[in-house]
Amino acid sequence: MTVDEGRRITITAIAREAGVSVPTVSRVLNGRSDVAPQTRERVEELLRRHGYRRRAARPRVSASLIDLVFNDLDSPWAVEIIRGVEDVAHAAGVGTVVSAIHRRTASTRQWLQNLRTRATDGVVLVASDLAPPVHAELRRLNVPMVLVDPAGVPTLDIPTIGATNWTGGLRATEHLLSLGHRRIGFIAGSPQMLCSRARLDGYRAALEAAGEPMRDELIQPGDFYHESGLEGAKALLALDEPPTAIFASSDQMAFGAYEAVRQRGLRVPDDVSVVGFDDLPEARWSSPPLTTVRQPLAEMGLLAARTVLRLAQGEAVETPRVELATDLVVRDSTATLG
Amino acid sequence: MTVDEGRRITITAIAREAGVSVPTVSRVLNGRSDVAPQTRERVEELLRRHGYRRRAARPRVSASLIDLVFNDLDSPWAVEIIRGVEDVAHAAGVGTVVSAIHRRTASTRQWLQNLRTRATDGVVLVASDLAPPVHAELRRLNVPMVLVDPAGVPTLDIPTIGATNWTGGLRATEHLLSLGHRRIGFIAGSPQMLCSRARLDGYRAALEAAGEPMRDELIQPGDFYHESGLEGAKALLALDEPPTAIFASSDQMAFGAYEAVRQRGLRVPDDVSVVGFDDLPEARWSSPPLTTVRQPLAEMGLLAARTVLRLAQGEAVETPRVELATDLVVRDSTATLG
Repeated sequence: MTVDEGRRITITAIAREAGVSVPTVSRVLNGRSDVAPQTRERVEELLRRHGYRRRAARPRVSASLIDLVFNDLDSPWAVEIIRGVEDVAHAAGVGTVVSAIHRRTASTRQWLQNLRTRATDGVVLVASDLAPPVHAELRRLNVPMVLVDPAGVPTLDIPTIGATNWTGGLRATEHLLSLGHRRIGFIAGSPQMLCSRARLDGYRAALEAAGEPMRDELIQPGDFYHESGLEGAKALLALDEPPTAIFASSDQMAFGAYEAVRQRGLRVPDDVSVVGFDDLPEARWSSPPLTTVRQPLAEMGLLAARTVLRLAQGEAVETPRVELATDLVVRDSTATLG
Repeated sequence: MTVDEGRRITITAIAREAGVSVPTVSRVLNGRSDVAPQTRERVEELLRRHGYRRRAARPRVSASLIDLVFNDLDSPWAVEIIRGVEDVAHAAGVGTVVSAIHRRTASTRQWLQNLRTRATDGVVLVASDLAPPVHAELRRLNVPMVLVDPAGVPTLDIPTIGATNWTGGLRATEHLLSLGHRRIGFIAGSPQMLCSRARLDGYRAALEAAGEPMRDELIQPGDFYHESGLEGAKALLALDEPPTAIFASSDQMAFGAYEAVRQRGLRVPDDVSVVGFDDLPEARWSSPPLTTVRQPLAEMGLLAARTVLRLAQGEAVETPRVELATDLVVRDSTATLG
């Protein structure tokens, strides 16, 4: 009520007062990560103190649309993230345009072309590995962007929402150790994704804390998909001394492990305990219901949508990288070592 | 090349030549079903002969967007349908706006409000039970509509894409009969949906053709969701003379049946064969992989998107109701009666 609109503070004035350049203030306002922490803090403090509200960078009116871009919609993550984003956008009176670019340049070009014909208020990317060229083009179009990154590849200079993969790997392994398991097999995710490494490191940390050695023969490669879980678990169960529990780096691979256990005439959890990672809806419907590490995918989508809508309104984003907590959900696929 | 644009035929001229009213020609052009078949044929023949192309009903330019509206995105159908719609729209350079209206009036109003602010070329509804009020409003806005209707409730006067539910029920039951099963339990879908009735009737028809009586105690109510499959299968397995096979009206209920079988210390398919309905991606990843009736959900979405894009360009739709074929997919959850 007491704000004097006529004396609205400018970016230039903020930059002068902070002793930084105007582009630096812009970078802070755009939530970019290439700003030193102290600089960011000083600029944000000044922005707050002066009640700065960025005017819309683009002169056009709101498009009443945000874009949500996947590599592929058949990822088991997709629908959860769509739910989160749509929820927030819908409540804000904004439509959610869902696109799949299939890691193909032509497809990405097609989408960008569509974007140019109809405008958008912002883009939520769930396609980190194809993002750099898209990213450059979107920056040119001056569209706010947020990356939802369950895979943990935060290579882009935009606000990113991830999950605590290392802690998830730790908790899953601790849970199996607490049930008395010592030989715990591990099926890894795609090697090119950081989250795969983080989950493996969490597994290793839990074993080390329990004084258990890491055994190379208990580590199987995987790619998050069902088939690799089936193959990895088959290999583990064929060992001379097979593991009594298997921690798979995704729910789909855990379902593959179920099938490997079944094919050997064994049972989950009586003969082999299995833990997954994701907590897809299917984890509740599997038989037995799957103990797994919950990634809050819908919440990640929700936060991404909120963030992109805030950026679209010219607000600043305080934290360029957020990791939401993962959480162990204990169901019926794990049992005390008999 | 030889079309004389200056002598473009009008709806009025078509109506006069066909001996019908102008609104009737409009109804044919809009793919509505309230036109007598002979009238439709005559009008379409004239439209074709004169090479009629409807000019955009609305003066505005193409929105380069279509809307895809669900009741809820947590339906296991949702992502398959999104995939089909997005595929077609993307290739046409059109964005797909995905919305969930949660069977709530406020939410629907919110969506319609968003629609008015940004325009759309057409709407694919996957929300038949809430559709009538939406439908009226969309008609007022003069937006082409298509209903994707896996549930089989074609109550609306708009082009509809469904699947052959009765035939699916028949095939699933025939398959179990061919494996020697005679006591075949059935878990029904939501009673208010026509598709549930069609699947039950298919089951009944197969039994009758095989000279098997329908036994009331083998029919359990359900609602398509997991819990009801679990409860229905528990009840079936608790019978004095339990069935040797269970046909569930959805994949999710089939997974519930898996769990009921497991909880009794039995195995699928050794002790009980199970068939589902849908062929969701999860059917391949369940343990054992599920024998099920495939509903071509992605293709249904694909056809719906094509249809709505054609309507948006003023083309006529020949068939107001299309049912795509279902198909039995045999995997490992069914076995010969031992």
